[in-house]
Amino acid sequence: MRWAAILAGGSGTRFWPLSTSARPKHLLPLAGPRSTAEEAVARLEGLIPKERILVVTGAALAPMLQRQLGLSAENVLVEPRAASTAPALVWASAEAARRDPEADVLSLHADWCVVEPDAFRHAADAALSVGRTSRRLVTVGIVPTRPETGYGYVVPGEVLQGEARTVGRFVEKPDASTARDLIAKGALWNSGLFAWPADLLLQEVSEKTPELAPALPALRAGRVDEFFRRVTPISIDVGVLERSARVAVVPGRFSWDDVGTWDALMRVRQRDPQGNVTSGPVHLEDTRNCVVWSDQDPIVVSGVQDLVIVHANHRVLVMTRDRAADLKTVLEKLPPDVREPKP
Amino acid sequence: MRWAAILAGGSGTRFWPLSTSARPKHLLPLAGPRSTAEEAVARLEGLIPKERILVVTGAALAPMLQRQLGLSAENVLVEPRAASTAPALVWASAEAARRDPEADVLSLHADWCVVEPDAFRHAADAALSVGRTSRRLVTVGIVPTRPETGYGYVVPGEVLQGEARTVGRFVEKPDASTARDLIAKGALWNSGLFAWPADLLLQEVSEKTPELAPALPALRAGRVDEFFRRVTPISIDVGVLERSARVAVVPGRFSWDDVGTWDALMRVRQRDPQGNVTSGPVHLEDTRNCVVWSDQDPIVVSGVQDLVIVHANHRVLVMTRDRAADLKTVLEKLPPDVREPKP
Repeated sequence: MRWAAILAGGSGTRFWPLSTSARPKHLLPLAGPRSTAEEAVARLEGLIPKERILVVTGAALAPMLQRQLGLSAENVLVEPRAASTAPALVWASAEAARRDPEADVLSLHADWCVVEPDAFRHAADAALSVGRTSRRLVTVGIVPTRPETGYGYVVPGEVLQGEARTVGRFVEKPDASTARDLIAKGALWNSGLFAWPADLLLQEVSEKTPELAPALPALRAGRVDEFFRRVTPISIDVGVLERSARVAVVPGRFSWDDVGTWDALMRVRQRDPQGNVTSGPVHLEDTRNCVVWSDQDPIVVSGVQDLVIVHANHRVLVMTRDRAADLKTVLEKLPPDVREPKP
Repeated sequence: MRWAAILAGGSGTRFWPLSTSARPKHLLPLAGPRSTAEEAVARLEGLIPKERILVVTGAALAPMLQRQLGLSAENVLVEPRAASTAPALVWASAEAARRDPEADVLSLHADWCVVEPDAFRHAADAALSVGRTSRRLVTVGIVPTRPETGYGYVVPGEVLQGEARTVGRFVEKPDASTARDLIAKGALWNSGLFAWPADLLLQEVSEKTPELAPALPALRAGRVDEFFRRVTPISIDVGVLERSARVAVVPGRFSWDDVGTWDALMRVRQRDPQGNVTSGPVHLEDTRNCVVWSDQDPIVVSGVQDLVIVHANHRVLVMTRDRAADLKTVLEKLPPDVREPKP
């Protein structure tokens, strides 16, 4: 049967001061009235039932996630430590296989905003089917719309079945001219939306991933703490997919955004006629292309542009939009008592 | 004896959201650790004792003013309505004359920031002396440092005694080229720091100020409410000084600033090496020439310049410095419940 593994960790710094370590961005209603974690579950409706959705997260977030997503406690997998994506997905796949030896696992992230849920489901369905019938680890490759340098690319190889292809190679974050060349050759963005038969992932890891393989017996014996203690943190892309000969790619024709910064709200939320994104008690005059967000006191803004202005958790943030990606370095310079917001 | 009349009304909009109708700018520690009202009283030390300092204000501010300035209740004159400067100063002068028929009155404003208190006292002393010996209404004219178009100018006439001159004419807010011509001819800024024998002011008003003269008998009879009800609001400059033949000017060699906007703090407060004025828990990175003020939550700022950023009384304000003078029009567009801060 089909299972989902949703990665839902997170440190809570990207949407400071609104996001906190106790409530990082994927638990906040940033892109719309529901959190992206809620959207991730809703998006699977008709494809994978809730009782087969596993969420991997840290201890701090588990209670809120379970409550917000309406999952049973046994479906929330609490990592003893964050160790990148491979250990998390190997654990989730092993857990799915334990409950269902025929499990196919769709792996996704809790912090995605996807505007076209039908196209998403179509691609996920294709990936799961191709994984099962071709017995491969399948990645969904997004059809690019621009020569983005911040993403990884997948170059498709031979035709497998329908739109599915083998993977020629993976290219991590190319420069702009390489990105243009890749797109001209039909390369796709590596989305992070994967599907595989659970037993195949475990088999590939045991053969190709020395960072994890020695710890697999502990995992199979149910000793999760020992598994996480023994693994070397590594991503699923680097640790497994890029090393495996049994990979495939299916195209995805949907826009997908991990809403990684305050500025990203400009892409995923409705903007007013002056190009502003606002939430809460916000009053703007002659203000253009700003993100203004208050979960707290009214904010009055006059005559500015291209700023991010936030009041939440007893902190005020004002920065230029182009600095939103560097918010973490701003926070690192703050005194700890200022950095830690007070919900 | 010498008396002071300090004008201390105010609507509280200029330093929104920090200033409120219950605590306008002259009661706030804006220019330094003490409010400008406290500074005004301190500046008179050695010149006029506290028991002869009268403050004219509105009912909302009277208790806080009395407490902050340490005045006796009988020295706080509460206007039944705001009616510009002439009625207020006529009342204060009449009150001084009632208690002391030989009263000389120095009139000043509670919202001034003066960097050189000795030069201020010297000019005030000269104005009081000249008023008494020449029996004139005396204005202190500030020696200009720039062709400011926002001030009124006094063109000195004939020499009276020492540095004192008669007044040739008053010029209200000239254009820049006129301002340059005026300065070349020795014109001074009309400061609003005045001195007169109390009985002379009342005499001049009864002869030259039909807006107030018919109400003077009520004032003399102690019926202050009736006086204010009957007067037509008018400024002391327009209603009396510009009409009187018995005026004089003495020069003042101090800088004086009414700190009328958030931006004015740039002139009167210490700036950091990047040109910022800050107060409260404020954390700046790559930020230049900003006013950042918090009486409440920490404010974190990154990458901006020439902004005013304030958090106070449960409101956040972000505006460009060049809009600080128009804050009132911004506030007029706000819903009343947002405009009225919550201390």
